[in-house]
Amino acid sequence: MSLVVVGSLAFDTIETPYGRRERIVGGSCTYFSLAASFFTRPKIVGVVGEDFPRETISLFEKKGIDIQGLKIVPGKTFHWEGRYGNDPNQRTTVKTELNVFKDFKPQLPSDYQSADLVFLANIDPDLQDDILAQVKKPKLVAMDTINLWIQSKPGSLLKVLEKVDMFFANEEEIKMLTQETNLIKAGKKLLLKGPSFVAIKKGEHGALVMGKDFIFSVLAHPCEEVIDPTGAGDSFGGGFMGYLDKVKSFSHKEIRRAAVFGSVLASFTIEDFGVERLKSLSLPEIEHRFLQFKKLVSF
Amino acid sequence: MSLVVVGSLAFDTIETPYGRRERIVGGSCTYFSLAASFFTRPKIVGVVGEDFPRETISLFEKKGIDIQGLKIVPGKTFHWEGRYGNDPNQRTTVKTELNVFKDFKPQLPSDYQSADLVFLANIDPDLQDDILAQVKKPKLVAMDTINLWIQSKPGSLLKVLEKVDMFFANEEEIKMLTQETNLIKAGKKLLLKGPSFVAIKKGEHGALVMGKDFIFSVLAHPCEEVIDPTGAGDSFGGGFMGYLDKVKSFSHKEIRRAAVFGSVLASFTIEDFGVERLKSLSLPEIEHRFLQFKKLVSF
Repeated sequence: MSLVVVGSLAFDTIETPYGRRERIVGGSCTYFSLAASFFTRPKIVGVVGEDFPRETISLFEKKGIDIQGLKIVPGKTFHWEGRYGNDPNQRTTVKTELNVFKDFKPQLPSDYQSADLVFLANIDPDLQDDILAQVKKPKLVAMDTINLWIQSKPGSLLKVLEKVDMFFANEEEIKMLTQETNLIKAGKKLLLKGPSFVAIKKGEHGALVMGKDFIFSVLAHPCEEVIDPTGAGDSFGGGFMGYLDKVKSFSHKEIRRAAVFGSVLASFTIEDFGVERLKSLSLPEIEHRFLQFKKLVSF
Repeated sequence: MSLVVVGSLAFDTIETPYGRRERIVGGSCTYFSLAASFFTRPKIVGVVGEDFPRETISLFEKKGIDIQGLKIVPGKTFHWEGRYGNDPNQRTTVKTELNVFKDFKPQLPSDYQSADLVFLANIDPDLQDDILAQVKKPKLVAMDTINLWIQSKPGSLLKVLEKVDMFFANEEEIKMLTQETNLIKAGKKLLLKGPSFVAIKKGEHGALVMGKDFIFSVLAHPCEEVIDPTGAGDSFGGGFMGYLDKVKSFSHKEIRRAAVFGSVLASFTIEDFGVERLKSLSLPEIEHRFLQFKKLVSF
């Protein structure tokens, strides 16, 4: 099958209790595609400025990521600056410079349009909708979102939500969107809006995947040193969708395994700043941790 | 084997988004022993005033709970009043009237002193220590605690901690006690202080049991309507210890299963106010939910 992801490619300036990094490569599309690349050859859609490192583009190519949909335009790459406290879930955005991302109008190359799986990372819901108009009969469309869009464009967001098969979001975002404090109720409410599955990301507490008559809970890998939580959610999505694209099945059994692979990929991402850990990661390491996850919960 | 639990028996006045109940029966010893009674015949140690309901004492007897160690003294039973917000983890104590609990000096009846398992619920650590001086070679001693004692009697608490095999506490309490924000680090730090196992209760996120070269994560049952969270932690302890007492083994396999039974019992407790759900609960219901827990995490 084939997997298309649309999202951001960025420079991130990040401060965590473990240090500070200036303008390292990040962005939802970056984390997602690198995580997915262990299972399939994701096709990315995004925009960067002329300052985006050639080495990162080479890395994408080396990892089998299709960069036909990556536009390099005059100007500066999107820049995000954030800070994390002792609790990795507490994130403060210090600065956002949209730069070339401001005028981003994603266009799918022709051979992307017949993608089987589509992942709409947390970009403007109107852009997400534009993408959906460009794809022909995908087998599964998933979307992610962030608080910003829930607050600023709830109407557009709900319109996209009705069209997707799977909704990824953080616990807080799902509670905000549904105005429910109970996560199970919130998940059920979202299932009535359109998606067949809702994947609720809970940071150090793992994730919950809900569907009609289906509920699966996956843990986060116990991690002593969360060096940099940036990209954990996108890595979860990338591992999840990449695995589904590989196995060509959306059975409950494979959805469960996809969620575990998603959590495994996220657990590696947070072990170092930026995409460093994903760069050095190997499939045997992923498979080993998958088995550790089994041991962690079996009784 | 045999299991002794020392803790509080109380009247609780509780307000949750689902309603208000005045002076219903509660207390750590009450929840723990009712939960444990599905697996074994727990022996309770505690004190109540003359106002404590005869029906509750009859209930204990009906459930096979040994009440030799329950003292009924002139005066009023301990009374706690609390309120929960929409988030069941947000608890505010409105009032605490110690009453007869103020002069509680727990004394073990002679046939309690050879108990195999001892559970010291969240009472004053000096009283917990007194209890330990009265038992002869127990096979496993577990303790629980609350923020109050971590803040007011850290020295006494650490002294007891060194003597026990298993430490039960909430996530926030463990972080406070160890001054660590990372739970895995916090757990490892506690394992160096004495206990062989640490059971970290995480509310809706379940629990983590850590030991030397051992880590097991158990979920909370997905619950849409948390009617009253009071007693969830004590029910977890009761299910856990009751099961261990029944199977007469502390193997890693049984520790895992004990944690799941603990979580199962807690999940029933929160389905109604006070001990109502535990009163109506049957073993087949417990076993059914145990299997549901398996399904929830298997992949």
